[in-house]
Amino acid sequence: MNAVTIAGVGLIGGSFALALRKAGFAGRIIGVSSPATIEKALAREVIDEALSLELAVAASDLVYLAQPIQRIIEMLPGVDAAARPGTLITDAGSTKRAIAEAAASSIRRGRFIGGHPMAGKESRGVEEADADLFRGRPYVLTSREPELERWIERIGARLVILDPIEHDRLAAVVSHLPQLISTALAPVIGEEPRAASIAGPAALDFTRLAFSPYDVWADILATNAGPIDAALGVFISRLEELRTTLQSPDTARAFHRAASAARELRRASLSHQA
Amino acid sequence: MNAVTIAGVGLIGGSFALALRKAGFAGRIIGVSSPATIEKALAREVIDEALSLELAVAASDLVYLAQPIQRIIEMLPGVDAAARPGTLITDAGSTKRAIAEAAASSIRRGRFIGGHPMAGKESRGVEEADADLFRGRPYVLTSREPELERWIERIGARLVILDPIEHDRLAAVVSHLPQLISTALAPVIGEEPRAASIAGPAALDFTRLAFSPYDVWADILATNAGPIDAALGVFISRLEELRTTLQSPDTARAFHRAASAARELRRASLSHQA
Repeated sequence: MNAVTIAGVGLIGGSFALALRKAGFAGRIIGVSSPATIEKALAREVIDEALSLELAVAASDLVYLAQPIQRIIEMLPGVDAAARPGTLITDAGSTKRAIAEAAASSIRRGRFIGGHPMAGKESRGVEEADADLFRGRPYVLTSREPELERWIERIGARLVILDPIEHDRLAAVVSHLPQLISTALAPVIGEEPRAASIAGPAALDFTRLAFSPYDVWADILATNAGPIDAALGVFISRLEELRTTLQSPDTARAFHRAASAARELRRASLSHQA
Repeated sequence: MNAVTIAGVGLIGGSFALALRKAGFAGRIIGVSSPATIEKALAREVIDEALSLELAVAASDLVYLAQPIQRIIEMLPGVDAAARPGTLITDAGSTKRAIAEAAASSIRRGRFIGGHPMAGKESRGVEEADADLFRGRPYVLTSREPELERWIERIGARLVILDPIEHDRLAAVVSHLPQLISTALAPVIGEEPRAASIAGPAALDFTRLAFSPYDVWADILATNAGPIDAALGVFISRLEELRTTLQSPDTARAFHRAASAARELRRASLSHQA
């Protein structure tokens, strides 16, 4: 690769640029973002130069779309129109099906591979960009692509191949469901005026995601509505079951089953990291 | 105080003994527990000596009951029968109403003050006892008692006075509800075979409580059934509301309300710690 375009030079786009550089990428890194972001990204040397989308894409072998989901979807036709034949186009959106569908109908000249780096920070923006953000973290690609896989490995991420439908179903369970639990739980605790006087680590851990910005989540909820509804449905029915059997032997079984599932999740998680 | 009985020399009872000693208590610390536990507690010098319940209580100015809730309830008549008039009796049970009711009908000679140190560890047993376990953590008393309050302050805990009903209602929301969320969520994640490949910190944080031992929780669920049912009911209806409005402006409001509640919880939590 001689040149890469990063469209959306925020936390993820900026971190990908820094990670590529640290991993030995010697070509040009071109940023496409708002003037304020470009100024900060150039000052921090996250990107080498800034161009319009058309000029940047036309000069690049890889286009990395790191904006919000709906913006990525809107950009695809313009990116394809500007791309040289065979240009690799990938994205970092948090849901994959809607983007894959949009790419299937709009990417003709380029080759589109969906991506989702499972990494983040509490604060956003290029100021927070970090060459090691992806280190040890899962990085989903929706299909195999040798060059992209090589860079993902070089930046220290853990490659996971998942088709868009499976990615979105799993993300609904491991990420979107905890988010909505936190959003629902925080006011339940907040409405008890003296709750804070005895709140321990559990109450704080379970309400941390309540700070997630809605502007990011609006796109996730809109583009993964089916799997999220299904995950909420299963979870609510498990809670209702627990509620009706709280003092029966069924609850002993529920505790044992939960401990096994939590153990298995950790075991499998560790084996993926190994 | 010249002598203290610790009944149930596990993590909490053992930590209270070590904390008292570190805080300058110079009297005798007498343990009442199973032979295996007593052996370990003497070896670690958590207690000075072991006696039968009757002899220990008869010799003590403070009796600290650190067994499971139902066991505490069963012990109260025997403790009272052995106590000298005016002996201070307190407990460390995770729910307070059922114990307070039992104490009201069985404590005649002693003076009972319910207690709940909001502290713990993932592992239990006197092996894990720690003089600093209560440091900075809330320690609930169900009524005021100057001598007990003084020792709670000296061991570095943060005194919170709550009547038993209010304690149990708040505990249902800040502690019992997160536990049941974790118990319900772990299998939902565990049933997706590839979930672990993309599980991040949220999935791990939200399933950590799934390891809580059922033998502890059976007593909590049995003695706080009403408030737990109410907390589950409110939480489930909030989740259902979110589910039906996922793509409407109501969800933007729910995210903003959750962020405010989470912020307020942290602000109030810090002000309690200050």
